[in-house]
Amino acid sequence: MKERGKLIVLSGPSGAGKSTVVALAMEKRDDICFSVSVTTRAPRPGEVDGKDYFFISDEEFRKMVEEDRLLEHAEYVSHCYGTPRNYVLEKLESGMNVILDIEVKGARQVKNKFPDAVLVFFAPPSLSVLRERLTGRGTETEETINARLERAGQEYTEADFYDWLVVNETPEQAAEELSAIITASHCRFCDRKDILK
Amino acid sequence: MKERGKLIVLSGPSGAGKSTVVALAMEKRDDICFSVSVTTRAPRPGEVDGKDYFFISDEEFRKMVEEDRLLEHAEYVSHCYGTPRNYVLEKLESGMNVILDIEVKGARQVKNKFPDAVLVFFAPPSLSVLRERLTGRGTETEETINARLERAGQEYTEADFYDWLVVNETPEQAAEELSAIITASHCRFCDRKDILK
Repeated sequence: MKERGKLIVLSGPSGAGKSTVVALAMEKRDDICFSVSVTTRAPRPGEVDGKDYFFISDEEFRKMVEEDRLLEHAEYVSHCYGTPRNYVLEKLESGMNVILDIEVKGARQVKNKFPDAVLVFFAPPSLSVLRERLTGRGTETEETINARLERAGQEYTEADFYDWLVVNETPEQAAEELSAIITASHCRFCDRKDILK
Repeated sequence: MKERGKLIVLSGPSGAGKSTVVALAMEKRDDICFSVSVTTRAPRPGEVDGKDYFFISDEEFRKMVEEDRLLEHAEYVSHCYGTPRNYVLEKLESGMNVILDIEVKGARQVKNKFPDAVLVFFAPPSLSVLRERLTGRGTETEETINARLERAGQEYTEADFYDWLVVNETPEQAAEELSAIITASHCRFCDRKDILK
């Protein structure tokens, strides 16, 4: 029987490099997948339903919340986002480690519903490095960048319930650490000890 | 500044394949070393002082115990064995992850003195596989094998304070898991969180 996958919650400021690092880790192992969120916003050009998001109506979303079919959910710029419970559970049952890229508040919801989840906080080497990276993108105003940095600092103070902290010095090192955390999370004594019986 | 190494305590029944697996992990990374124990027994042919053991007198051993210079110690077949604290601390300071191959009782002593230690229990897939492996060696009587199996079962029931459990299905998989545990242990949120300040 294939071992059940682990639910990996990944949080950290925008610009910390989460997507690059997860993509690198996925190149090296085929037992990781991203969770696909539901959202009430309209698809952007090029976005594929069921791949980028499950695009649903406000009413469908409300129903999912009422029926407790979301592991976590949040509202952002007047649209709703959430993590569908069944999709995640099916992937986990099939042996895949499922990565949720969500904010600290959502992570706390997941941890409450899913105490077994593995919580990884993802940080740049420092906030000044984060500023450089965000500035380097050239896509955001200084005002937006300042707001993001302030938010990052705020998230740092709220992140004390995470299990792991990956500092993204280089994408390769960070991907190796993320991958090691996933492998190790399958070796927790408390989860495996029945083998010794 | 180089990050401090982690103290890795490895326990598990004789025949579980600890040494093979550690040797494999050491081939792949150069930041792991074995702790060299002190012993009061005489060197066997081929054994090198400072490599296999530090060979010391009964009196020196007693002195080390009195001065709390051993992380753990035990008596076995009327000889004394122990893990010298300074040797381990120096290696850790230099950034090496130090592996102690010790029994469950010694592991508990280490955990008390060194709460930061990473405790890994190492097991064969089952006790019947262990029996096969011990029988396959062809060097031990059935009586000795039975005694070893009984002892393994006893250790299993005492091992509930370990952090990690590696099951040696194949040496490669077990070495990868051990290596992942070592890498992950450098990413513990509680140890690293000062980076976020």
